[in-house]
Amino acid sequence: MPHLTTIKVRGYHLDIYQHVNNARYLEFLEEARWSYLEDSGDVAYFEQLNLAWVIVNININYRFAATNGQTLEIATKFSQIGSKSAVIHQVIKIQGTDTVVADADITFVCLNRKTGKAALIEGALKERLEQHLND
Amino acid sequence: MPHLTTIKVRGYHLDIYQHVNNARYLEFLEEARWSYLEDSGDVAYFEQLNLAWVIVNININYRFAATNGQTLEIATKFSQIGSKSAVIHQVIKIQGTDTVVADADITFVCLNRKTGKAALIEGALKERLEQHLND
Amino acid sequence: MPHLTTIKVRGYHLDIYQHVNNARYLEFLEEARWSYLEDSGDVAYFEQLNLAWVIVNININYRFAATNGQTLEIATKFSQIGSKSAVIHQVIKIQGTDTVVADADITFVCLNRKTGKAALIEGALKERLEQHLND
Amino acid sequence: MPHLTTIKVRGYHLDIYQHVNNARYLEFLEEARWSYLEDSGDVAYFEQLNLAWVIVNININYRFAATNGQTLEIATKFSQIGSKSAVIHQVIKIQGTDTVVADADITFVCLNRKTGKAALIEGALKERLEQHLND
Repeated sequence: MPHLTTIKVRGYHLDIYQHVNNARYLEFLEEARWSYLEDSGDVAYFEQLNLAWVIVNININYRFAATNGQTLEIATKFSQIGSKSAVIHQVIKIQGTDTVVADADITFVCLNRKTGKAALIEGALKERLEQHLND
Repeated sequence: MPHLTTIKVRGYHLDIYQHVNNARYLEFLEEARWSYLEDSGDVAYFEQLNLAWVIVNININYRFAATNGQTLEIATKFSQIGSKSAVIHQVIKIQGTDTVVADADITFVCLNRKTGKAALIEGALKERLEQHLND
Repeated sequence: MPHLTTIKVRGYHLDIYQHVNNARYLEFLEEARWSYLEDSGDVAYFEQLNLAWVIVNININYRFAATNGQTLEIATKFSQIGSKSAVIHQVIKIQGTDTVVADADITFVCLNRKTGKAALIEGALKERLEQHLND
Repeated sequence: MPHLTTIKVRGYHLDIYQHVNNARYLEFLEEARWSYLEDSGDVAYFEQLNLAWVIVNININYRFAATNGQTLEIATKFSQIGSKSAVIHQVIKIQGTDTVVADADITFVCLNRKTGKAALIEGALKERLEQHLND
């Protein structure tokens, strides 16, 4: 089961087209990722290792225009763990329906905060992230 | 020559990492697109035809973390015109340098506001957009 | 008992000072007001009467700088009902403490959407809003 | 002459009412303040003294609802210098008209970044800020 976050669409999320603005969805996705990473213990784990998540790519499909009053359900899960980067896949649906509002792949690297460079995803870190593939 | 928009990074654009937040870049890109489409006359042209731009995909690479006080220069141009969708390519650099902060492809369809459906990009509309490939 | 809304502070809410940005608090307050007005049935009531809330003044005190990971609790209640305008008072605290992060008075008028003019707050509308003073 | 900043209203600044959202105006005001403080040399001066501006109150009147395509002109000036706090007054107009969209008083203290406490506004700092009253 992927991790679920719900967000209710409000009037201030909309733009001139009366739909949720394209940039706002990225805040919704970020909210859902922090919620997931906090619940999984990864926020604490990363702080302990002095690592930070740094996004290198976002590829998002906008499929259905959500509007005021709708409740969005965001499913968040790791979909790919490489040696230098990993991918989180997120799907936003109208809650209680099969209507996909947007789906996105978020590719990030693990920044070593001491060196300022991307850390290799290997050893215990790799094992931990790979376990998430089965979440 | 692609169309250029400049934006100065301010403290309120940053997030916990002291870099411009990933969602804020999408607002910067949107600002640059409207500036371009206004200057090119396309905003007026689309209104006349009762068409609206609807984004279906954004694929953005984050390459360098911009921070407070830097001036960003955003180059915006059409890169691809299909029969159902078109692509605008945007590159954000630190002004006066070759440092690429982010680059993105924005894929959109032309929504017919009367029917609520995507319009085919053909005839005069296609010609007009294709001319932009040489901007 | 005033109506309560909780919001967890995330990294994207912060600015260069590593505190929640002054503008973002207004979104938090707006979130809490819609939640309150929805729960009280006022959103539906206003739609039925073709009225809209239009803010004419916000007076907000910033008392304590909230930061990442803190959970904010926003208390929302009507504090004053006049003949032309009404006031909603909101207090943001760190959840589970007496630390006031911000408090604000939001003054609004009831816009008649047909005429585009402010409606008098009288009769049934006044009675309904005045009942909220005891919420 | 007060310092002037112009901002063009775009579709992503609007909300469900098709007007600029109340929170967004605070970003417009912040943009104008940084532009002013940068031009006046105060950003550099404050950094040198290890001081930071911390907002303690914003009192904003919303007088006219700005919408897409309008250019806003924001006038920014110091209006009051006390011993513990100072006030910046800002007025947003539709450019080229007398239509006031919003006006606001921003009260701030000067935070000593070493001690984390508000600094007294006295001596050279007071003189410098008081000169701005005549800008």
